[in-house]
Amino acid sequence: MTQNNHRFVLGANQYGKAEVHVVKITRDSDRHEIEDLCVTSELRGDFDSAYLDGNNEHIVPTDTQKNTVFGLARNGIGSPEGFLLKLGAHFISEFDWVSGGRWEAEQYSWDRIQSHGAAHDHSFVQNRQETRTAVLVKDGGTDHVFGGLTNLTVLKSTESGFEGYPKDTYTTLEETGDRILSTDVTARWRYNTTKVDFNAVYASVKALFLEGFAEKYSSALQQTLFEMGSKALAAHPEIDEIKFSMPNKHHFVVDLSPFGQDNPNEVFYAADRPFGLIEATVARDDASEAGNAWEGMAGFC
Amino acid sequence: MTQNNHRFVLGANQYGKAEVHVVKITRDSDRHEIEDLCVTSELRGDFDSAYLDGNNEHIVPTDTQKNTVFGLARNGIGSPEGFLLKLGAHFISEFDWVSGGRWEAEQYSWDRIQSHGAAHDHSFVQNRQETRTAVLVKDGGTDHVFGGLTNLTVLKSTESGFEGYPKDTYTTLEETGDRILSTDVTARWRYNTTKVDFNAVYASVKALFLEGFAEKYSSALQQTLFEMGSKALAAHPEIDEIKFSMPNKHHFVVDLSPFGQDNPNEVFYAADRPFGLIEATVARDDASEAGNAWEGMAGFC
Amino acid sequence: MTQNNHRFVLGANQYGKAEVHVVKITRDSDRHEIEDLCVTSELRGDFDSAYLDGNNEHIVPTDTQKNTVFGLARNGIGSPEGFLLKLGAHFISEFDWVSGGRWEAEQYSWDRIQSHGAAHDHSFVQNRQETRTAVLVKDGGTDHVFGGLTNLTVLKSTESGFEGYPKDTYTTLEETGDRILSTDVTARWRYNTTKVDFNAVYASVKALFLEGFAEKYSSALQQTLFEMGSKALAAHPEIDEIKFSMPNKHHFVVDLSPFGQDNPNEVFYAADRPFGLIEATVARDDASEAGNAWEGMAGFC
Amino acid sequence: MTQNNHRFVLGANQYGKAEVHVVKITRDSDRHEIEDLCVTSELRGDFDSAYLDGNNEHIVPTDTQKNTVFGLARNGIGSPEGFLLKLGAHFISEFDWVSGGRWEAEQYSWDRIQSHGAAHDHSFVQNRQETRTAVLVKDGGTDHVFGGLTNLTVLKSTESGFEGYPKDTYTTLEETGDRILSTDVTARWRYNTTKVDFNAVYASVKALFLEGFAEKYSSALQQTLFEMGSKALAAHPEIDEIKFSMPNKHHFVVDLSPFGQDNPNEVFYAADRPFGLIEATVARDDASEAGNAWEGMAGFC
Repeated sequence: MTQNNHRFVLGANQYGKAEVHVVKITRDSDRHEIEDLCVTSELRGDFDSAYLDGNNEHIVPTDTQKNTVFGLARNGIGSPEGFLLKLGAHFISEFDWVSGGRWEAEQYSWDRIQSHGAAHDHSFVQNRQETRTAVLVKDGGTDHVFGGLTNLTVLKSTESGFEGYPKDTYTTLEETGDRILSTDVTARWRYNTTKVDFNAVYASVKALFLEGFAEKYSSALQQTLFEMGSKALAAHPEIDEIKFSMPNKHHFVVDLSPFGQDNPNEVFYAADRPFGLIEATVARDDASEAGNAWEGMAGFC
Repeated sequence: MTQNNHRFVLGANQYGKAEVHVVKITRDSDRHEIEDLCVTSELRGDFDSAYLDGNNEHIVPTDTQKNTVFGLARNGIGSPEGFLLKLGAHFISEFDWVSGGRWEAEQYSWDRIQSHGAAHDHSFVQNRQETRTAVLVKDGGTDHVFGGLTNLTVLKSTESGFEGYPKDTYTTLEETGDRILSTDVTARWRYNTTKVDFNAVYASVKALFLEGFAEKYSSALQQTLFEMGSKALAAHPEIDEIKFSMPNKHHFVVDLSPFGQDNPNEVFYAADRPFGLIEATVARDDASEAGNAWEGMAGFC
Repeated sequence: MTQNNHRFVLGANQYGKAEVHVVKITRDSDRHEIEDLCVTSELRGDFDSAYLDGNNEHIVPTDTQKNTVFGLARNGIGSPEGFLLKLGAHFISEFDWVSGGRWEAEQYSWDRIQSHGAAHDHSFVQNRQETRTAVLVKDGGTDHVFGGLTNLTVLKSTESGFEGYPKDTYTTLEETGDRILSTDVTARWRYNTTKVDFNAVYASVKALFLEGFAEKYSSALQQTLFEMGSKALAAHPEIDEIKFSMPNKHHFVVDLSPFGQDNPNEVFYAADRPFGLIEATVARDDASEAGNAWEGMAGFC
Repeated sequence: MTQNNHRFVLGANQYGKAEVHVVKITRDSDRHEIEDLCVTSELRGDFDSAYLDGNNEHIVPTDTQKNTVFGLARNGIGSPEGFLLKLGAHFISEFDWVSGGRWEAEQYSWDRIQSHGAAHDHSFVQNRQETRTAVLVKDGGTDHVFGGLTNLTVLKSTESGFEGYPKDTYTTLEETGDRILSTDVTARWRYNTTKVDFNAVYASVKALFLEGFAEKYSSALQQTLFEMGSKALAAHPEIDEIKFSMPNKHHFVVDLSPFGQDNPNEVFYAADRPFGLIEATVARDDASEAGNAWEGMAGFC
């Protein structure tokens, strides 16, 4: 490291081990339980000397962080949010110079296989309806806990339109009062407490998102997004705000008239790219401060 | 095209349009139905002059093939296998020089959203438990129809072992009578007739695969594969053979002893690569001839 | 929208069209030029009535945003950063209620094909050494311009070690003074001016990153990251800060001793997951304020 | 295994370890060399008792196959084709009941980093212009060796058209004498001998493909494909046939007339799906027999 480099400063930083894929089988009885998580651990604190001088005396190896995930899993997982809280508390208490961090998990869901009419004791089939996500940000003594989900793909085949928008030189889109509306829901919600039955709230929020998507006429994906978020906030006082990132997955009515056919919204071409993208926050007006806890989460403004 | 090139010959060939993503909504009543397919159409026949002389008079544009998918979908899909049979028959009858082809589909499954305790009429959530696949190969006047599925991910947390294998210089693996067994099932089955209720057989075959995976002790993934195929063949005389391509998705017991912990098959590291790969055919001993209909299907020997 | 929902507020939001893949051929002479970009446009401003009341009178259609990308491309692209500046200025001036936004581009690089010893006039082969990225955030009257790159994969086969780190209960890693160091460089740098020859600076920064990675002994990826950033800042006063997100792509020395072989750092197993992850900022100590311009960028803290 | 299952037979099968990612550093001098391969090993032979009776006495563990890849790599790789020949010979000679198999490799290419104007001794940057592939099929005492490449993306901005094709009810495509032609070249070629300088031939074949793509007017991708194959066969008597699978990556001229702009083939929309797909074989008329060696290769007819 030359003197030259010391003219520049180390700004915000974090480091750790990403995507530790841990599967926990609880086998207290013949009826096994499975928990399947991919965990990322990143530490924040005083690591300047490693960057500036090549001195690693504060660098808790990422390999150690990985081992800790496995070691703590031995004592049970319970919920991704709860497990991250245990992980974070461990590192903060173990190393003086670790003042915070960011811990993240994806959880994959498994259903029991039906065999001869019964749910099997130890055989499972993966359910990919969505991926559950969780994040813990510890910063300045505060625990910011986020629940979330991604890749929950929904579609309504009617009761959606898009009309009344402004036109300019570049407008060629035609208004419609009946179209397909489809999106992959990605959402994260911020809890205002850590005293939560995280699994129960997760199931409820997901169900409310689906209901909010399904039940009303949609004037635009924006309106539907706000409806989905409002329903979840109304039911869950332990949540202060929800951020959504949702593509508008275009389904175009195919013009079959050159082939002598009509097409009354029956045959659609499902396009990949480009796609619409709607990103927005639905919050309580008295939501607690998030500080910089949302930083680094892709696609959330 | 120079004289030079004519020293070489055009061998097996096919061409067409790949991955036409068509969504068909049936809206005869307020209770809509959705069919969601990605279709590939490839023609075989006399196309030599295009390759050798740049003469396109036999080249049915791939754009036309795409349009045909949408046009025929207007009359209903029904099942992916049935739809491919209609597509194939169309091209054979429409163009003299088209003598065969290969048509392929993936079908994505949607469930109705539960809203206020009822299955919604026109709002759906995608179910990614597996992707259904279908292939039609028309060659030499014969229709070879294949059902299939891919990415059906299963796991059993006990009742699986691997013992009694040969050892040599490069053997370090230890025998075990209790391990996790997990795989992503990819399978294709060849029908011996086109007179099939393809949707009903599909549902049955999938259920039998799951049961075959779940119910017996597994001495190796090879044994389990054969069991799964045998169950499906036993129930379905309209199927002559089934080919499987199944990874062995390794779940390694984590050694927690350096941290002073035991690990009685509770905490596993789920590895990505390398993975085992088991590919095999289960067939009737009097199966009909498949000719070259299996050619070009990845991962099937 | 029920009264119920109005208890909640719309927070930060943006929307637009994502991944408009535009290819621009400049054919002023027989020697064509190609520019290949994937552009995302998202608007910020007053869109509350769409979310709250289903009133779209402020919702510039995402389709219009897509058309605008193509229309402006007709007048030339030049550099991704320059093109985004034109896009952003257009939307701000065209619609009163659009007060800012976020525009993003990926650019793909093509080399001329060598044919009979010469670089061809109009035939190209794609070069995937890295993907160039650019972002413009307009917020509160300020233009924040970011250059960047992703997926620049580098490896050094020696002159890297990792020693002197703290040990605890969960530490099993052994120290080494000679290992493989490999990473995929993802970086974004923030310009402090829009008066830049963006293409020239991009080429220079990339070259300096490569040199910074190559030339010194690495005590840890952290030290190497800081070295790479410092070299670029030293050469480019028009850049105020650089954020990196770099995996540590582990290459493990395979233990060949069970097979009677030595392995003096010659045969490595390249692992996928988990991986180390180092994210950090290198900045001038007098860097300008970024406001919230970094928000929503994945993996940057 | 019940008596029931024995009514069915085990057909074609193979098994092994997939995607063993091995990096070999040759460090005989300060100027290191790097070889980076992903290797799959699958054995064929007499494995019936494992499938039918759960008897593993013939099942060489996939873990052992993985270890063998690393052990043989210690003695050098040289070329992917040459390495696969060593791997295959090992398994055939080691285990009586192994009568053949299929071994496959991908090879990733690295360039030396330029540092202070010189190519660095031990620092590399990955070059993703294409991925090199190799396959060895041993069956019935014969070694079928295949070279190949995938994901070589090329584009010509003029000197391509598509005219003179047949029209029917579903034809809406318009003829053009000037369009963009772009494809990702995937090809495999079959050697008629194992006495080959595989690395030199690979470099030559790739260069000839590029030249064949670049230099002539293309009446259709079919014609260009045949030209590319013919050039390689003409130069390389050690190759008997080449199979290509090439998408036609559509670039559509954007209609800018609604915005009052012309578009003389300057601004294109690059589409993802659907895409054309051209698959064909170019061969010597006296090519040796391939048996079933092409089986299981995706997208080759």
